[in-house]
Amino acid sequence: MLVFIGLGLGVDGMSLRGLREAQEADMVFAELYTSLMPELDLKQLEQKIGKQIKVVGRDVVVGDPREILEAARKKRVAFMAPGDSMVATTHVDLRLRAAKAGIETKVIHAASIASAAAGLLGLQSYKFGSIGTIPFQDNQSTRPYDILTDNLRRELHTLLLLDIGEGGRSMAAEEAIKIMMGLEERLRRGVFTPSTLVVVVSQAGSENPVIRADRADRLRDENSGDPPYVLVVPGRLHFVEAEALKVFAGAPEAAVLWHMHHP
Amino acid sequence: MLVFIGLGLGVDGMSLRGLREAQEADMVFAELYTSLMPELDLKQLEQKIGKQIKVVGRDVVVGDPREILEAARKKRVAFMAPGDSMVATTHVDLRLRAAKAGIETKVIHAASIASAAAGLLGLQSYKFGSIGTIPFQDNQSTRPYDILTDNLRRELHTLLLLDIGEGGRSMAAEEAIKIMMGLEERLRRGVFTPSTLVVVVSQAGSENPVIRADRADRLRDENSGDPPYVLVVPGRLHFVEAEALKVFAGAPEAAVLWHMHHP
Repeated sequence: MLVFIGLGLGVDGMSLRGLREAQEADMVFAELYTSLMPELDLKQLEQKIGKQIKVVGRDVVVGDPREILEAARKKRVAFMAPGDSMVATTHVDLRLRAAKAGIETKVIHAASIASAAAGLLGLQSYKFGSIGTIPFQDNQSTRPYDILTDNLRRELHTLLLLDIGEGGRSMAAEEAIKIMMGLEERLRRGVFTPSTLVVVVSQAGSENPVIRADRADRLRDENSGDPPYVLVVPGRLHFVEAEALKVFAGAPEAAVLWHMHHP
Repeated sequence: MLVFIGLGLGVDGMSLRGLREAQEADMVFAELYTSLMPELDLKQLEQKIGKQIKVVGRDVVVGDPREILEAARKKRVAFMAPGDSMVATTHVDLRLRAAKAGIETKVIHAASIASAAAGLLGLQSYKFGSIGTIPFQDNQSTRPYDILTDNLRRELHTLLLLDIGEGGRSMAAEEAIKIMMGLEERLRRGVFTPSTLVVVVSQAGSENPVIRADRADRLRDENSGDPPYVLVVPGRLHFVEAEALKVFAGAPEAAVLWHMHHP
């Protein structure tokens, strides 16, 4: 039996049912590479579930998960992952491998940044388009910029995740904004200009999430709380959504007005 | 202080942090009308958080939430809701009202059917379009059918929720399929025909979720587990998504092939 348990967002984001399943498992694996969880205290988590957690990397989960599958063939094995454990494609793949090997699987859901970011900002979750990931400067990919262009054409909001570097190095929000503005300078589609309304979310799901909405150039020159970050670029805003951005994210009236008139 | 706590999906879907916040609150309200939680044992939940829960209806939350706001002005008040508490627009509205009245607010996230259904089926969450709700037969709205048409045009997957009737009456999955097939007969856009590949998800997030993918006409004539249900109509399927529907939802090869060739 292989039980996928979502760790949710921030400390203690796991569900009560997830905790029980982890306590009842014979062995517990965890991957912590699909998302940064700086606040996560592994020792404390081990104490809560009453057993050791074996942290595995991408090389095991994606490359060669035999260790996990062989354990799950005979025992009750839990596999923990940040957010909702099934949002990452590679985990769907691991679940498929298990199912094909005749191993029973179970999914314990938790909050995912995909739906949480929307709720935190007061934006409608179904009005989000494809999710993009901003790669580090040395990677010349235009993909997040292309996704943003495509979503805006459909008037949809865009969630942009920030890449995680070697050894878990996190990208600063300011750096991500600079990279997107650099792509704008190269490709000039007018989707991430200095005046574009952008939202920086810092530490979603933690005790103290910081949300700042403003023009891209202002947010680029500011320090926006602590990692992890995500960026949101709004598409067409409903009246209540615009209101929520002002109240919960401190969006200046002028930046919102500019946005409403530059679709 | 007003703390919005998501109850997540199924029993014990709330996060560990949500439990702690509820335990620390002076007063706890809950709404249970935006989603059916048949397994939820209110008495047990009250025992866990060590205090009584006041269940409030739509008339209070949407109509006149003064009782909640006035309590939150002086005390630490928790407001619990199914799924991720911020996915429902009306709760964003309540949070806005609180913020404007100078009341501090906080959001404790949990799993939402919006991201969980995708993960459970092995479908990519960002490939879902707008969410529709299927109303009871006596309501002549074509809205879920219109949303489905629009999503399919963009090759996106569609999550269809089932309406909740007076006194919390739930709609059967078979009934929902009949209603969608009735709309197809009236509007004839070829998006919900007898051969259309449909997925019925029963009791997502519970101990025993049942997922069945098949032609619409077959699922209409079957009993599909217990409520609550949601329907998913896939858009363009990636190879791994098609595989997941076969393995996790028992989709017959023929139904998947038909789907792949009728975009």
